[in-house]
Amino acid sequence: MKRTARPENVHQATLLRLLRDGGRSRAELGDVVDLSRSKLNVELDRLVELGLAEPDGLAASRGGRRSGRVRLSPRTRFAGIDIGATSIDVAVTNGELEVLGHLSERADIREGPAAVLERAVELVGKLRREGLCTELNGVGIGVPGPVSFAEGVPVVPPIMPGWDRYPVRETIAQELGCPAMVDNDVNIMALGELHAGLAKNVDDFLLVKIGTGIGCGIVVDGKIYRGVSGSAGDIGHIRVDDLGPVCACGNSGCLEAYFGGAALAREAAALARAGGSAHLAERLAVAGALTGEDVAAAAAQGDPGAIALIRDGGRRVGQVLASLVSFFNPGLVIIAGGVARLGHVLLAEIRSVVYRRSLPLATGNLPIVLSELGDTAGVVGAARLISDHVYSAI
Amino acid sequence: MKRTARPENVHQATLLRLLRDGGRSRAELGDVVDLSRSKLNVELDRLVELGLAEPDGLAASRGGRRSGRVRLSPRTRFAGIDIGATSIDVAVTNGELEVLGHLSERADIREGPAAVLERAVELVGKLRREGLCTELNGVGIGVPGPVSFAEGVPVVPPIMPGWDRYPVRETIAQELGCPAMVDNDVNIMALGELHAGLAKNVDDFLLVKIGTGIGCGIVVDGKIYRGVSGSAGDIGHIRVDDLGPVCACGNSGCLEAYFGGAALAREAAALARAGGSAHLAERLAVAGALTGEDVAAAAAQGDPGAIALIRDGGRRVGQVLASLVSFFNPGLVIIAGGVARLGHVLLAEIRSVVYRRSLPLATGNLPIVLSELGDTAGVVGAARLISDHVYSAI
Repeated sequence: MKRTARPENVHQATLLRLLRDGGRSRAELGDVVDLSRSKLNVELDRLVELGLAEPDGLAASRGGRRSGRVRLSPRTRFAGIDIGATSIDVAVTNGELEVLGHLSERADIREGPAAVLERAVELVGKLRREGLCTELNGVGIGVPGPVSFAEGVPVVPPIMPGWDRYPVRETIAQELGCPAMVDNDVNIMALGELHAGLAKNVDDFLLVKIGTGIGCGIVVDGKIYRGVSGSAGDIGHIRVDDLGPVCACGNSGCLEAYFGGAALAREAAALARAGGSAHLAERLAVAGALTGEDVAAAAAQGDPGAIALIRDGGRRVGQVLASLVSFFNPGLVIIAGGVARLGHVLLAEIRSVVYRRSLPLATGNLPIVLSELGDTAGVVGAARLISDHVYSAI
Repeated sequence: MKRTARPENVHQATLLRLLRDGGRSRAELGDVVDLSRSKLNVELDRLVELGLAEPDGLAASRGGRRSGRVRLSPRTRFAGIDIGATSIDVAVTNGELEVLGHLSERADIREGPAAVLERAVELVGKLRREGLCTELNGVGIGVPGPVSFAEGVPVVPPIMPGWDRYPVRETIAQELGCPAMVDNDVNIMALGELHAGLAKNVDDFLLVKIGTGIGCGIVVDGKIYRGVSGSAGDIGHIRVDDLGPVCACGNSGCLEAYFGGAALAREAAALARAGGSAHLAERLAVAGALTGEDVAAAAAQGDPGAIALIRDGGRRVGQVLASLVSFFNPGLVIIAGGVARLGHVLLAEIRSVVYRRSLPLATGNLPIVLSELGDTAGVVGAARLISDHVYSAI
């Protein structure tokens, strides 16, 4: 197989993207593409010659001759790298973006790009040594900050010291010897949901990630909307209250200052010290500090103080989302990220505020749901990002 | 000329849309479309045969043989109808959407669809009798409320009693005997700005209309973004303060309840009665009621009370816009509509809040400007809407 093979025209690109959702018969492909039967067969045969697809037996008869099935080359391999503030996730997928192997470990983004990217490359090497791939067709990378998508570099990322304009795409492409694309972590999670999650058949939706920071992936017509300078969806610094707490960005009353991971940990500790939560006080005495997971655990045990913290945060997120739902009229809102693991108490509060405050026309058929993909959203989305590139006409 | 002629393929559609921005030489068209010279000439000749375009002499030499110029048929006519809460604007344009004649008169949307649409058709007839057109290639219509774009009908429009699901598109298409398309008034204003206004070369922008109501047109990649149920951009009912005044929609603290045309008139009258503005009190005594124009006139004379009213409203609009700018990262924000005529005091306040509160990355290169098109934005946008349809492949 030629690893560098790419589709030669838009028809081939369209066919590869259809096959990415699963192999199918030539007759089924003919039903959805605007090509004559002979032209379709020419393009499919060419994809087989290029090593991008291959025949896969005969389909069941639809009344006439049995049509030949086609699938992506089973030797196709994409890697997805999802770099978080405190973690690295790496996966290798096949052409259909099914995860063949996934490694996850703690990491600190503040160690800088050289160390973090080296570790990510090592993790890909580990999966390779396990026999999951020899060469890669492409790699997608997500990082927790704003990215100049065209240049493949982070741009003034607030929680990534040392990464500003670091050539992430070039570094990874060179190390792994294949095409690479970089985007911010929230956008790649949204792509993951689009490919394999609850947004599979939704053209216009929002993915709200609540983790260390708060961000929003915006999908318009099945594609990530990035805005003119790539900062679209950066909702963590929308001001919810002029008199609110000071944020890491220097302003006050930002959404993130109320309900990012750091804000939640701080509020939980204050509550524990003030005697507002027995569960959290106990945990604080043992661990010396609290995290979002501690709040989730306390709430799961019915701790009223912890539940109140989650409700309060959900209300703030709901206030911001209510405006965005009226403005954007999405078909679906997915809540994801570490803090989203606070679960159904959080979801109930967000739903209640959005359904009450947004325009009825915008919420009439609007599901607001928790992500079901967990840690795989990012790596699958990163693989999807690079496969979109590899499966586009040159 | 065959009035019903339509392009037969995407290449012809692309060429017609290029010619809509002005006639040009075959060589210039060849520079921007992805067609061989012979194929380009086949398609252009076919457009001439169909009566959609015509030869227009020879271009200046670019070093070789002089290339033949082509333009849209000068007999092409579109009509644009912009129905507001209190006005009807009607214009007839040529194929390049230049306004050949424009009529504007007071009207009351509450008289219902039969009366209002009949009057709009009469106004088109009046322009026709003035010799501006015999037959029309198409008509676009804007109405001041939510529209189901696919069906061409208003949907539960709050300020349009009797219009809910009225077949506006069918009625106008039948009366004028040509293709018709309906959208809400804010979207057609955004299309007008895209075609002839300050957004001419901007792919992603927002048009904020502040008139009787407040709404926002969202343009993504040069196309109107309507959301899944067509309500995208309906920002007038975003809540700016839980404890704010009651809105016509039944909720409290909506943006429109602070600064729509009705809110401004009410606030101005209250101010005049409370002795807060000599100018407004004088005007109120004469006229018995106040309007946004009265506030603008008083502010223009330096009346501090009127200026404070405008600043306060601008601050509220700015608060909402700041969130939307962080979320959407547009390349341009245009302020338009009746209340926008309050002018630079309003603009200065909106700018100040947005630039202070939005993400620096999102405002770095963000112009916030007043529309320069005035009443023509709607009618040109309506003509643009229908021309997009007529100049698309069947």
